[in-house]
Amino acid sequence: MAEQVFSYQQLYSFVVAIFNKIGCSEQDAVTAAKVLLSADIRGVDSHGIARLSGYVRLWEVQRVNAQPQIKIIHETPSTAVIDGDSGLGLVVAPYAMQVAIEKAKAVGTGWVSVQNSNHFGIAAAHAMMALEHDMIGMAMTNASPLVAPTFSTAKMLGTNPICVAAPAGQQPAFVADLATTTAANGKLEILQRKNQAAPAGWIQDAEGNTSHDPHELKKGGALLPLGGDREHGSHKGYALGAIVDIFSALLSGANYAPWVPPFPAYVPMPAQQPGKGIGHFLGAMRIDAFRPAADFKQSMDHWIEGFRNAATITGEEKVLVPGDPEREFEAERTANGIPLLPAVVDDLKGLGEKLGVEIPWTQ
Amino acid sequence: MAEQVFSYQQLYSFVVAIFNKIGCSEQDAVTAAKVLLSADIRGVDSHGIARLSGYVRLWEVQRVNAQPQIKIIHETPSTAVIDGDSGLGLVVAPYAMQVAIEKAKAVGTGWVSVQNSNHFGIAAAHAMMALEHDMIGMAMTNASPLVAPTFSTAKMLGTNPICVAAPAGQQPAFVADLATTTAANGKLEILQRKNQAAPAGWIQDAEGNTSHDPHELKKGGALLPLGGDREHGSHKGYALGAIVDIFSALLSGANYAPWVPPFPAYVPMPAQQPGKGIGHFLGAMRIDAFRPAADFKQSMDHWIEGFRNAATITGEEKVLVPGDPEREFEAERTANGIPLLPAVVDDLKGLGEKLGVEIPWTQ
Repeated sequence: MAEQVFSYQQLYSFVVAIFNKIGCSEQDAVTAAKVLLSADIRGVDSHGIARLSGYVRLWEVQRVNAQPQIKIIHETPSTAVIDGDSGLGLVVAPYAMQVAIEKAKAVGTGWVSVQNSNHFGIAAAHAMMALEHDMIGMAMTNASPLVAPTFSTAKMLGTNPICVAAPAGQQPAFVADLATTTAANGKLEILQRKNQAAPAGWIQDAEGNTSHDPHELKKGGALLPLGGDREHGSHKGYALGAIVDIFSALLSGANYAPWVPPFPAYVPMPAQQPGKGIGHFLGAMRIDAFRPAADFKQSMDHWIEGFRNAATITGEEKVLVPGDPEREFEAERTANGIPLLPAVVDDLKGLGEKLGVEIPWTQ
Repeated sequence: MAEQVFSYQQLYSFVVAIFNKIGCSEQDAVTAAKVLLSADIRGVDSHGIARLSGYVRLWEVQRVNAQPQIKIIHETPSTAVIDGDSGLGLVVAPYAMQVAIEKAKAVGTGWVSVQNSNHFGIAAAHAMMALEHDMIGMAMTNASPLVAPTFSTAKMLGTNPICVAAPAGQQPAFVADLATTTAANGKLEILQRKNQAAPAGWIQDAEGNTSHDPHELKKGGALLPLGGDREHGSHKGYALGAIVDIFSALLSGANYAPWVPPFPAYVPMPAQQPGKGIGHFLGAMRIDAFRPAADFKQSMDHWIEGFRNAATITGEEKVLVPGDPEREFEAERTANGIPLLPAVVDDLKGLGEKLGVEIPWTQ
């Protein structure tokens, strides 16, 4: 069965309706839908509408509060800690990023650590909010423990992504959004669906041996930190994932390390709960708190052009700048629509029927 | 010829005397010596006294100003840009970090981007300044272009390290200090001296093929970003190195990308100079701008103990926490002295004779 293609608007209306049905306000439903679908439009299929049922299941087991009272529980001129009140991360993180932006307007930079939240979609959706304000945006989150630190068999960290978005002038913005593992879990899911072997350095089995089985995580295996093994720098990927955990959860009072609540609603919660929900970290730096924005953007254009024009290895088409692949997806999918796998379409169909939402492919 | 072992105090007196001889003030000589030797004491032999001659050669060709007028050229309550006046990075970076700390005291966080500086030693020396203030410290720097971005044969970035230091309670501090390459250049230098092959994923030859030759960089080859190749996430290491470059140089007005002045004084300066000197980025976040420091430290202890006690892969002794290996070196070398390779001892001997400084091994 082939992929079906939907317009952004079709999917957007559906997602807003679903979030309305579980009790989100209109404004929250719109925010959540935009964040969720920014993944699909940018080609990050693992983090978009394919996860909509997962968010709803978290609401069903009362781990997501559809009407959260998000609030600042501590602040200074350049910082804040926000309690997400178990809301959707898709709603809590944009709120927190807006606080970071307001603080940056006032004192140059703003840094917000968030407790008591849930999965926030793609980090880029939040970091990129800074761009229109001529700010550099940053977003991080901890996540379900799937990653073994170097030398360990235990799943102690999430894929803990880091995103940095920086504005340019004539060139499109620099947007680096990376899981601190060799491969994001979504990449592994693609191999699972195709039943293809994973490259060495992506995963290990329950004993810590290299594995090529994309289903290894269900058998006690783990994702590997960026670098793969010690000889190739896995201790650095592990350290980066740890930094994300510290900024997102230790600074906010969220759960951390193996105690982060798992995304799949059917996975039991860890027995111990040292904090509240999952944690995020959002940052905004006003460019002109350092240097006139026009000068910075001119330098960014020069920087980006330098990389685009760098000599390529024979057989490679071009050197990419972080953000290029996602932007190409966005242009293509805005023009031609978003393809969804049959399994995703079926899942959404079931979800629509369950909640009484008209589904786009019947219209 | 075997290694010779020196006490920290012997090397410290020698290094202070050398920096005095090139015209540094007593205070700057002391600061520079402490930063430089913090590498040796922590086991990062590539970044310590072995580079002293290199710094002096930069002074000889007038790329290092021994009496810089370091100044803040722009600031907001939480940010500053500092002009290092071509001073030693060993002096400029601690100055900048102190500014970041003062701003964090005032408004919660402080972020300082530095232009017109030189090599700053190990990033950890600066980031760790924050610890005694119950702050998280961050330090980054750009560096001589040695690293090819994914798909390229061109050396466009330095090894661009990132350090984050976070205080704990009963446990020692978390200190992650990592080059954004698979292996730091210092690791390659060790293989060069031993004439041993480099593992795959560390370097490529001039055409972009995998190479095991540790001397490849002199033949047009390049270091590889953390990840090694596209399949193993080298685009992430490249993105991280790019972020360091943007924060350190694009925000400050320093040179960036392939235009960063090379550390070896004999390597010609790039024809184009889009900025001034090399760039650093220093940050400090007051813990209690987010959460009571005692609560954070208790959580850090719990976090650290969780990792220390995590199940190990058979054959591995223990799971390390970032900062552990360097701390073990520090304890051992504080007790037993710092071993130097014969080539380094000879080099220092020549340097001492040239500048008329009594050398420790004759005392």
